[in-house]
Amino acid sequence: MATVREIAALLDGDVVGDADRVITGIGKIEEASAQDISFLSNPKYEKFLGETKAGAVLVSRALDLTKHAALPPAVIQVADPYASFVVLIGTFQPAVKQLDAGIHPTAVIHPSAVIGEGASIGAYAVIGEGCTIGRNTMIFPLVVIGNFCRIGDECTLYPHSSVREQCVLGSRVILQPGAVIGSDGFGFAPLRSGAYQKIPQLGIVVLEDDVEIQANSCVDRAVMGETRIKRGTKIDNLVQIAHNITVGEDTVIAACTGIAGSTKIGSKVMIGGQVAIAGHISIADGTKLGAGTGVIKSITEENKAYWGRPAKEFMRAKRVEAATSQLPELLSRVNTLEKKIAELEQSKSDK
Amino acid sequence: MATVREIAALLDGDVVGDADRVITGIGKIEEASAQDISFLSNPKYEKFLGETKAGAVLVSRALDLTKHAALPPAVIQVADPYASFVVLIGTFQPAVKQLDAGIHPTAVIHPSAVIGEGASIGAYAVIGEGCTIGRNTMIFPLVVIGNFCRIGDECTLYPHSSVREQCVLGSRVILQPGAVIGSDGFGFAPLRSGAYQKIPQLGIVVLEDDVEIQANSCVDRAVMGETRIKRGTKIDNLVQIAHNITVGEDTVIAACTGIAGSTKIGSKVMIGGQVAIAGHISIADGTKLGAGTGVIKSITEENKAYWGRPAKEFMRAKRVEAATSQLPELLSRVNTLEKKIAELEQSKSDK
Amino acid sequence: MATVREIAALLDGDVVGDADRVITGIGKIEEASAQDISFLSNPKYEKFLGETKAGAVLVSRALDLTKHAALPPAVIQVADPYASFVVLIGTFQPAVKQLDAGIHPTAVIHPSAVIGEGASIGAYAVIGEGCTIGRNTMIFPLVVIGNFCRIGDECTLYPHSSVREQCVLGSRVILQPGAVIGSDGFGFAPLRSGAYQKIPQLGIVVLEDDVEIQANSCVDRAVMGETRIKRGTKIDNLVQIAHNITVGEDTVIAACTGIAGSTKIGSKVMIGGQVAIAGHISIADGTKLGAGTGVIKSITEENKAYWGRPAKEFMRAKRVEAATSQLPELLSRVNTLEKKIAELEQSKSDK
Repeated sequence: MATVREIAALLDGDVVGDADRVITGIGKIEEASAQDISFLSNPKYEKFLGETKAGAVLVSRALDLTKHAALPPAVIQVADPYASFVVLIGTFQPAVKQLDAGIHPTAVIHPSAVIGEGASIGAYAVIGEGCTIGRNTMIFPLVVIGNFCRIGDECTLYPHSSVREQCVLGSRVILQPGAVIGSDGFGFAPLRSGAYQKIPQLGIVVLEDDVEIQANSCVDRAVMGETRIKRGTKIDNLVQIAHNITVGEDTVIAACTGIAGSTKIGSKVMIGGQVAIAGHISIADGTKLGAGTGVIKSITEENKAYWGRPAKEFMRAKRVEAATSQLPELLSRVNTLEKKIAELEQSKSDK
Repeated sequence: MATVREIAALLDGDVVGDADRVITGIGKIEEASAQDISFLSNPKYEKFLGETKAGAVLVSRALDLTKHAALPPAVIQVADPYASFVVLIGTFQPAVKQLDAGIHPTAVIHPSAVIGEGASIGAYAVIGEGCTIGRNTMIFPLVVIGNFCRIGDECTLYPHSSVREQCVLGSRVILQPGAVIGSDGFGFAPLRSGAYQKIPQLGIVVLEDDVEIQANSCVDRAVMGETRIKRGTKIDNLVQIAHNITVGEDTVIAACTGIAGSTKIGSKVMIGGQVAIAGHISIADGTKLGAGTGVIKSITEENKAYWGRPAKEFMRAKRVEAATSQLPELLSRVNTLEKKIAELEQSKSDK
Repeated sequence: MATVREIAALLDGDVVGDADRVITGIGKIEEASAQDISFLSNPKYEKFLGETKAGAVLVSRALDLTKHAALPPAVIQVADPYASFVVLIGTFQPAVKQLDAGIHPTAVIHPSAVIGEGASIGAYAVIGEGCTIGRNTMIFPLVVIGNFCRIGDECTLYPHSSVREQCVLGSRVILQPGAVIGSDGFGFAPLRSGAYQKIPQLGIVVLEDDVEIQANSCVDRAVMGETRIKRGTKIDNLVQIAHNITVGEDTVIAACTGIAGSTKIGSKVMIGGQVAIAGHISIADGTKLGAGTGVIKSITEENKAYWGRPAKEFMRAKRVEAATSQLPELLSRVNTLEKKIAELEQSKSDK
């Protein structure tokens, strides 16, 4: 149960209509009742906006409400009505219980570790010497936290995720299953024999507040200093973050992407799937990289979109791609031109 | 010990010759005895077909037996003689024991979980509330199965594989080490501040009968509803299957491939390594995608082959690739043409 | 505390100056004292070579010492001064303790397993029947070693790494968290129905001495025989090594790379990130593959560099790439040429 005003605040939305209306449930726009909230995402359903019995409807900010003669008692304008609706569902009907409260008797916790109030720790989790675990943090079964780590409040560490020694997680950090934080970077010094000598990886990883690292992704520790993922950044499955990388705030990185060592990624960057980014470069704030892009030099101008291998400005990449697709025909045209020129030259010399 | 007929049935083969012959062992074609079965895969060994002492030989259906005057007592025609021979080895000499029968005393199994007859559960496996585990299923050490999951009969879940809450596995499903089933999808709603709000991932994953998910691959749960991998589909290592994807029956997906959310992959599709497939599209039954292909729009015609980034019909992709490789020379040719044209124009204007 | 001579031996360096000088600490070149060793990596700091108070300085072999009038008491020439300096730090100040000595009481070790002197085994590690674990090897919490494995001396197996049955690791092998050794290869025989029959994976994996497999990478066991990674080879995170591959000595493979089955990679090969290599081919010793390269046929000539998809000789690939980037302009130029030719032909026919 919540007022329209409270729901709008949760969803970062704006209310048009009765902000004090009390909502008790959720429903489809064609079925919802006067106490329900619904959503309008597909333009095909737009006519329902005037017909629905719902007490409130989530709509896109892009929707022009002035075109609708009849509106429900309350409308909440949001960026993405479907996403906001799913957020609401998760609030109205919390997910199934995943982890029992308290500390499972089989968890091996070093006596020096400090466990925050309300933290839950699952079966066979292992927490090392000198660790601190924040309040209400959930550590699932079979998680390993190495010595001298600091884990913040309200974090969720799913099964088989691991954090190696000395790494630091802020609050509300989520590690999906199999995520690896603080593994050694790929650093080796070549010897004259051609063999490699391992370079000790003495640094750490810092994941700031509200970072999520999804399944089987890896964030390597720094050679010295830190690998740092800043506040609010979200990283999808099977992503590689090499040593000494910095990723800014509110950046999103889709699955199967790899970023090489010491690179700096800005804030509010959007990186598509299977992108590859070279080491020792920097990517400006607000950059957008299409899926499969390969970046081999720094991007310094902010808020621009790139695509292709190597990366080109987006519209340029589309033109190059279009031209490449026509290459077999271009070859034929050049063949024809060469024949015609030869004829013209022949006819000239014949004179 | 088995008859040729029984072996042919196991291997989906056709018998030419004595189907009742009893086979007791296996051997190389140049060494096998009259009770052995052998195989002929490399054409260089074809002459042995008339010389071998083997009681039976596996040959390719593509081999023209009428060209061979002498044949062994029994020949079994199969699609891939080497693969069939290895299947036979596995039958004649079962692999080394990997997991002790029964339930290891250290396994933590919720009292409400129902464990099928003959199931084996290894050390430090954790099985959640309300789970059902089918008959003869093998759960290896350190596997985690979340609350309310249903696992079918004769499944094999290798060490460190995990299944998050409420997911469903059919029978004979295999999870290789580190496979992650039911991790959260990459779903976030952008707020006006630029920060992201996590969209609860309320759906599940269903893996139907005979699906295999190999090492460290990930199948994300749906936002709502299901991510579903249908009967018989095989997924190699380090593959990303995002939320709300459906993959059809008997599809194979090679390593390092990533498929984005809500895409529908058909049946009998063959996907090479390191392929990337965009979200919200569909791929028709029987499609073949060469290694490294990038698919950005739906493929609607069945049984066609594609390659390249972005994907092009296979022969077209080969022609584009061939033309691209000649581009430096094409540039030179166009430079030459421009000079010649300039000369011709000059000579025309000189007149 | 060590002499300059001892330090040079550790770092594979050559001494210029006082090899008997005793060094007790490390420091930055502008701050180091007479008992310290420092390093010079950035050319901008070169002037400090004549000014530093350091007792010894690590410099690049590429640096021309004859250009410097004043030198510190000892100079050690190495390939990579920064890397060597980090190696030294790791020697002077050993890393934080990660694993307690001895065998944790919760480790489940089969009675038939033989554990070498000085080996440490962490909480909830599981070691199978018939295994041998070498001297001073460190097995971290939650590692699983299947039946009949042989693990050499002084290995480090980090949390959640696993080795399936019968596989063999040499000495000083390192597995980072989540590394999977010995998972089944992707081998299936197609049946006439279109379904796939699993081909038993009966072979093993051998990792020779000094191999390192980093986080969440996978090395599949052979169908029959071995998948083998030879001495000193280093493999980064999220790399796929398929069944029956052989990788030579002192090869380095960067993150997100996938290599398909039965391929032979030579020694001293350098493979960049997100490379894809087809199955059943071979790559000559000393080959260099740039990031993102796709190799579809064997490389037989040694010590050459390649790039692109498909792979081309490096300088050729750069030229093709440069030409591709100019394609939209090339199209325009050909359009112009066609118009001019048409005019010339017209003017000719007008005569």
